[in-house]
Amino acid sequence: MGRVYSITSPAPKGGISYKQITVDYENMPVILKPIYTGICGTDRGIVKGSLNFAYCPLGYGDLALGHESICRVISAKSNKYGIRSGDIVVPIVRRPGQCLNCITGRSDNCSDGDKHEAGVTGMHGFMREEFGDSPEYLLKVSSDTMKEVGVLTEPLKNVEKAFEVYDLVSRRSISTDRFGSLSEKRAIIIGTGSEAFLYALKCRDYGFQTLITNRHPIDDLKMKFLDTAGVQFFDYTKEHRDESGWDLVIDTSGDPGTIMRFLRKTNNNGNVILFGTNGSAPATGIDGQDIDHIIERNIFLIGSVDGARVHYELALKDLERWNVQYGDKIKSLITHRYSPDDTSVFTKKDPLEIKSVIDWSK
Amino acid sequence: MGRVYSITSPAPKGGISYKQITVDYENMPVILKPIYTGICGTDRGIVKGSLNFAYCPLGYGDLALGHESICRVISAKSNKYGIRSGDIVVPIVRRPGQCLNCITGRSDNCSDGDKHEAGVTGMHGFMREEFGDSPEYLLKVSSDTMKEVGVLTEPLKNVEKAFEVYDLVSRRSISTDRFGSLSEKRAIIIGTGSEAFLYALKCRDYGFQTLITNRHPIDDLKMKFLDTAGVQFFDYTKEHRDESGWDLVIDTSGDPGTIMRFLRKTNNNGNVILFGTNGSAPATGIDGQDIDHIIERNIFLIGSVDGARVHYELALKDLERWNVQYGDKIKSLITHRYSPDDTSVFTKKDPLEIKSVIDWSK
Amino acid sequence: MGRVYSITSPAPKGGISYKQITVDYENMPVILKPIYTGICGTDRGIVKGSLNFAYCPLGYGDLALGHESICRVISAKSNKYGIRSGDIVVPIVRRPGQCLNCITGRSDNCSDGDKHEAGVTGMHGFMREEFGDSPEYLLKVSSDTMKEVGVLTEPLKNVEKAFEVYDLVSRRSISTDRFGSLSEKRAIIIGTGSEAFLYALKCRDYGFQTLITNRHPIDDLKMKFLDTAGVQFFDYTKEHRDESGWDLVIDTSGDPGTIMRFLRKTNNNGNVILFGTNGSAPATGIDGQDIDHIIERNIFLIGSVDGARVHYELALKDLERWNVQYGDKIKSLITHRYSPDDTSVFTKKDPLEIKSVIDWSK
Amino acid sequence: MGRVYSITSPAPKGGISYKQITVDYENMPVILKPIYTGICGTDRGIVKGSLNFAYCPLGYGDLALGHESICRVISAKSNKYGIRSGDIVVPIVRRPGQCLNCITGRSDNCSDGDKHEAGVTGMHGFMREEFGDSPEYLLKVSSDTMKEVGVLTEPLKNVEKAFEVYDLVSRRSISTDRFGSLSEKRAIIIGTGSEAFLYALKCRDYGFQTLITNRHPIDDLKMKFLDTAGVQFFDYTKEHRDESGWDLVIDTSGDPGTIMRFLRKTNNNGNVILFGTNGSAPATGIDGQDIDHIIERNIFLIGSVDGARVHYELALKDLERWNVQYGDKIKSLITHRYSPDDTSVFTKKDPLEIKSVIDWSK
Repeated sequence: MGRVYSITSPAPKGGISYKQITVDYENMPVILKPIYTGICGTDRGIVKGSLNFAYCPLGYGDLALGHESICRVISAKSNKYGIRSGDIVVPIVRRPGQCLNCITGRSDNCSDGDKHEAGVTGMHGFMREEFGDSPEYLLKVSSDTMKEVGVLTEPLKNVEKAFEVYDLVSRRSISTDRFGSLSEKRAIIIGTGSEAFLYALKCRDYGFQTLITNRHPIDDLKMKFLDTAGVQFFDYTKEHRDESGWDLVIDTSGDPGTIMRFLRKTNNNGNVILFGTNGSAPATGIDGQDIDHIIERNIFLIGSVDGARVHYELALKDLERWNVQYGDKIKSLITHRYSPDDTSVFTKKDPLEIKSVIDWSK
Repeated sequence: MGRVYSITSPAPKGGISYKQITVDYENMPVILKPIYTGICGTDRGIVKGSLNFAYCPLGYGDLALGHESICRVISAKSNKYGIRSGDIVVPIVRRPGQCLNCITGRSDNCSDGDKHEAGVTGMHGFMREEFGDSPEYLLKVSSDTMKEVGVLTEPLKNVEKAFEVYDLVSRRSISTDRFGSLSEKRAIIIGTGSEAFLYALKCRDYGFQTLITNRHPIDDLKMKFLDTAGVQFFDYTKEHRDESGWDLVIDTSGDPGTIMRFLRKTNNNGNVILFGTNGSAPATGIDGQDIDHIIERNIFLIGSVDGARVHYELALKDLERWNVQYGDKIKSLITHRYSPDDTSVFTKKDPLEIKSVIDWSK
Repeated sequence: MGRVYSITSPAPKGGISYKQITVDYENMPVILKPIYTGICGTDRGIVKGSLNFAYCPLGYGDLALGHESICRVISAKSNKYGIRSGDIVVPIVRRPGQCLNCITGRSDNCSDGDKHEAGVTGMHGFMREEFGDSPEYLLKVSSDTMKEVGVLTEPLKNVEKAFEVYDLVSRRSISTDRFGSLSEKRAIIIGTGSEAFLYALKCRDYGFQTLITNRHPIDDLKMKFLDTAGVQFFDYTKEHRDESGWDLVIDTSGDPGTIMRFLRKTNNNGNVILFGTNGSAPATGIDGQDIDHIIERNIFLIGSVDGARVHYELALKDLERWNVQYGDKIKSLITHRYSPDDTSVFTKKDPLEIKSVIDWSK
Repeated sequence: MGRVYSITSPAPKGGISYKQITVDYENMPVILKPIYTGICGTDRGIVKGSLNFAYCPLGYGDLALGHESICRVISAKSNKYGIRSGDIVVPIVRRPGQCLNCITGRSDNCSDGDKHEAGVTGMHGFMREEFGDSPEYLLKVSSDTMKEVGVLTEPLKNVEKAFEVYDLVSRRSISTDRFGSLSEKRAIIIGTGSEAFLYALKCRDYGFQTLITNRHPIDDLKMKFLDTAGVQFFDYTKEHRDESGWDLVIDTSGDPGTIMRFLRKTNNNGNVILFGTNGSAPATGIDGQDIDHIIERNIFLIGSVDGARVHYELALKDLERWNVQYGDKIKSLITHRYSPDDTSVFTKKDPLEIKSVIDWSK
């Protein structure tokens, strides 16, 4: 039994501490230390006490937080996944239950909800100065240049899963022009947080004309990043940029009103990916004309959550490439770095934040 | 130029006549006479003047109605589709435009809306005592036993297309039990019209526990039919039957409130097929919790309209089989027969109607 | 422990007896009696002693034969699959092992070979006057009209699985004409046994121009059947019918020389389904030009074995429909009926045989 | 009409010249100059006169060679594909005919063979000091670091197409372990040329244990490259490394004997991708046991040729990433550089060659 400093919350009632907890991890096949751990809306929701589904591991009154991370392997027993001492790795967040999807490597598609998520539901997260894990849940990062941006692997794996689904559903009709290009197809991402930025980069990779929108202007840093990536921003409360409609709408806001606004301009065979959740978002109206619009155009609305091992792998690959393609710009997505004992970041959010991380070397 | 008695409406302003119109059809490669033509909500909508998208063929002040039909070939020039004089055929309703989906046989997935639909948008329908067509738009019925129920091919092709989409999207996760059975999965169909019945039969074929629901009780004839098919009915305003949730929801009502009611009980990896349209259906609320429900469960909402040649072919096959499997019961779906000059059926609907048809031999 | 008359063979060394064996089946949840059991090349191969992979159940010196069957349920404990006393059912042949495909209902795609097949590998077959089984392996037949032809379900399920694969791989390119029809595409089936006939019917359902071929002429009964189904026969040793090449080749012969002959005339994006096995078939040459032909045309060669529960379900549906569509013709595929004690059918084959069955009422 | 120095061959009779030819290209929307053009077996085959299918453009006695290239845009009319003067681009080789696959952006799956390939069949290639093209056939390279390795885009696009097909067919069964990993699955690539190396890198990206093999040892440079990528080499004439069989076999040799050797050790649900062509490769035997092996294991043999626009795009992305991941190693695949007037490279091949290119700045 080891006592390790951890960032914890007595889920689901809310609160935040940096303190020692006792965890029996020392006999796990792999021992790790976090390099960076990222902070997202889920972490802040747990701290705020607004996420009812969060809960502590059995027998604990505290939940160690942290699902976005990049870690260093301190020691590892020999294993077929090739995880060795000194490796830099990203741990998988969701852990399988007993349903058919879980036992075949696709806990992201868990059928019965009986799975766990590190740092969220019944399993300690990665915001611990040291922890143990099994090698099958660790993804090796191929190069040291990923040590920083690798913390974006976990949020990006969600994007990769959503695009796996997009690839599947877009087989239902021809979506390119007659030369196989998507250059006249238009994707719109709702929201300007870190997930929205990652979705935008992926849309650019696919060749979509890509726009990103929010209900307020964005700062220069974000604008510069988008410029580099060939993504246009507009404030939808001021401007209209939906002349010819949308072929792909991706929502990261969780706001029904905004989703419906863009759904109503979605083109034939278009897809609307629902990703962002905000349980307290207010209701909006959906009427017969809206249903009609969806049907007559063969539009799909796609709920997509989490991602499987393969999506972590794809995320790592995309990050490595973007890291070169966009130069320092990808690193610039990490806007704030905090030390583990500065838990203020969990209760306030700098308007300039894209991604805040805990730097465990601090 | 031939003058033929037709059931017409001066679309989109509404109205109904049985009268002669002049159409240049005699040089078409195939000449046909309808046996039966079916009547659906779209026909009644045009007659009522409530469908703005309906319009007459260029140069005409009247639109011959009729998209559901089974016809006899009177004469046919030699053709590679094997259509010959004496054949019983079902004509395809939608005719391709110039988009990539249309020119590759999938006008049901038309990208730009630039297609035509017989009896609805810019093209005369099949409610004419005689008309001409091209063999590539005619589906041959393999046996005389289909002469009556074949009129259900057109509505059933919509179901087949929806299930093609279902087959595609259900590849995203494992949905059977560990023996490959769907016997514990539950499908619910909203609505009790003829399309709802056809969807229910298809769900049974897949092996789903199948329920059908509406906001009022149904008559004995319908109840008997459902019994035969192993489908349970319940009036959702009185009973609740959603203990364990739904794996497949199919809406034929177009009513957002009812859709949302069942969507909220849809299981992980579930699919909600939107098929029924009712442009004047009142709005209902969709809030952050609803969006959350869709995302956390990887739920898909699928708009599905029309069907391609392959779906007409599948519909013919299913009808032939059901015709045996359910004995006389499939024929019992055709509840009312009218003569062409009795246009009253377009303005009133018998509560006992499942499918009303015009019998062109009358 | 019950002693039941069974048709047995001391696999793999060969031989045939009709005698009593002792099997502990009486406590199984479902007790069945066969109505018909079909005989195929595998049964004859076991009897001949030429199938090395066949073996007896653990502790037995005899293997009860029989994998093609239609049975009546004598008694059944209550079960969620709805199997009840009096039902007519088709038992599934292959039983799952522990690999990921097996435990998710797809033992037809077993990854490690660690499965069993009734009447073939380590599990008693259905040629017993009475036997027990579990309800999850029984498929209910919907109507009494299937009592006879239902014995073809097992061989047909192989065809259904092959076409599932065809559906998947044919998504790689457009294979229809611009109206969505396959009427100009040509399928050829090699062989004229019962499996070949079932493949031919399925090809017709898809809309292919369908030909069937062998290296000798066929008798009038077979010719008549093919006429009804719109399938052309030719003797490839005498005639050439491959002017424009093949889009789909299905081999039921297992003969490499014949496969290569037709592969060399396979069109762009064509598929060659390998189904028939004949371990003792002589070698033929495949050279660089053959490999080139396959590559330049994006041709697929597809090995397909067995089928899952869903394929049994589809087979039952197709049989029901064909039973009507082709009238008495489907029944005519069952050319010979034997009593259980007449084991001569296992050692000789009437040249007029399409399908021989054991009639357990005799 | 412009006279431009070009590397030409009077196809199909063979021969090689560096000389001026007259081509009317000056009014094309985009004018380009090659930076590098790659040399492959097809080029050498044309020069040798051994490729019967090669032919000159209509009205020409010479064919300008060159299908692998990276070029600079000299001038460009405004276009929706965003191609501008100064851009570095890769031109697409195959140009569409009139079949349904060609007119929907998939000329790689051309149905009727009525397409053209630059530098091979009826269309001048890119080994000209200057040439014109249309923007829809040009792929923009995102960064200057790709100026050299970008010449591998064309050969790599073949790999990307083959893996698109792999992705499709591998949906037929579960191929990962229960954590979603391919780390215990084994891929083998036959051949040690540049295409083999590119296939090996792609297999590593998928997570396969990857081996590469040939019938002779390889030099240190190649060995070093493979080490970096975690790929093992073995000389199959000396060693056996097929203890547990192959899950994916990729042939780049076109030699039937070698293909059959590895096919016979292919595992259940395995795939054999046929890519390399060698029309003069000698025949080998395939017998009943081989057919049986393919069928009982649900093995697919997949002919895969060329690639579409999307595959060029994916190739560019993979090259960019590998360029970082493997450091200078990717550049080391380009082993030889020649000046345009040194045509000796077309008639002899250095044993150390991985990829030879013409450097048009020389």
